[in-house]
Amino acid sequence: MKAEILNPFISSALEVLETMAGLKPRRGSPRLKGREDKSYDISGIVGLTGQVQGFVVLSLCESAALHVVSSFVGEPVASMDEHVKDAVGELTNMLAGGAKRVLAAAQYDLRISIPSVVVGAGHIISRPRGVPCLEIPFETEAGPFSVELCLKLES
Amino acid sequence: MKAEILNPFISSALEVLETMAGLKPRRGSPRLKGREDKSYDISGIVGLTGQVQGFVVLSLCESAALHVVSSFVGEPVASMDEHVKDAVGELTNMLAGGAKRVLAAAQYDLRISIPSVVVGAGHIISRPRGVPCLEIPFETEAGPFSVELCLKLES
Repeated sequence: MKAEILNPFISSALEVLETMAGLKPRRGSPRLKGREDKSYDISGIVGLTGQVQGFVVLSLCESAALHVVSSFVGEPVASMDEHVKDAVGELTNMLAGGAKRVLAAAQYDLRISIPSVVVGAGHIISRPRGVPCLEIPFETEAGPFSVELCLKLES
Repeated sequence: MKAEILNPFISSALEVLETMAGLKPRRGSPRLKGREDKSYDISGIVGLTGQVQGFVVLSLCESAALHVVSSFVGEPVASMDEHVKDAVGELTNMLAGGAKRVLAAAQYDLRISIPSVVVGAGHIISRPRGVPCLEIPFETEAGPFSVELCLKLES
């Protein structure tokens, strides 16, 4: 996948976390995610259609989710309730929406779906054979999270 | 959500199961799914964008997944391996694709994403506040599965 497609998602993730959640997470080295690799405890998923196809995942361990969501909503959140799911969905939506705007300006036609949010320790999010997934790991003081980009160009 | 939007998905689910998997599962009464309600052990998710927005889920308990996938691929499948995930993703894709064709003929503009497949006992798939989810339960000789329609019209 071309850098001009991937970079807007990485930039958007950083912007959402810094601007909306006031966080400066440490970013690790991107890696190709295996189809059997687990995600964290809660994952927002936004589907992409059009010239760029696939989905974007924001996946957080429980402690990182509570930390990120507390920063996002501006008050302490102590348990994985409905508000956490809503916030993770909204953050994933903002991440994909920010990337979409940059790609639209570069003449890529794409649309994003509303987010689904998966909750469950040790869940795996897989994608069709032949669709690569780039995982960008992040570390916060409360634990890890990741952005997963499972994308291909329209064939 | 209007019946003319929902019905193509229900018809497509039945057609995919009967034609592609050679099954005649018993269909239960549709019900509104709560945002905290669990799905089964493996779930295919396809996002929808355009005039009809949201996502469609095909969720199966492990034994039903093995039964449905064995019928779909034409040979016994005994464990939840990569082939099961691929088959569940493909069946969900066919389900959404069949409904899309009917809706496109009725002048609805919509696109479907590639499938993501979630694996994990007791996972919850949630959606944004205000998006209803109609769950259509099915029963096979090997256990239950469901089709979940989390849809809204473009606002």
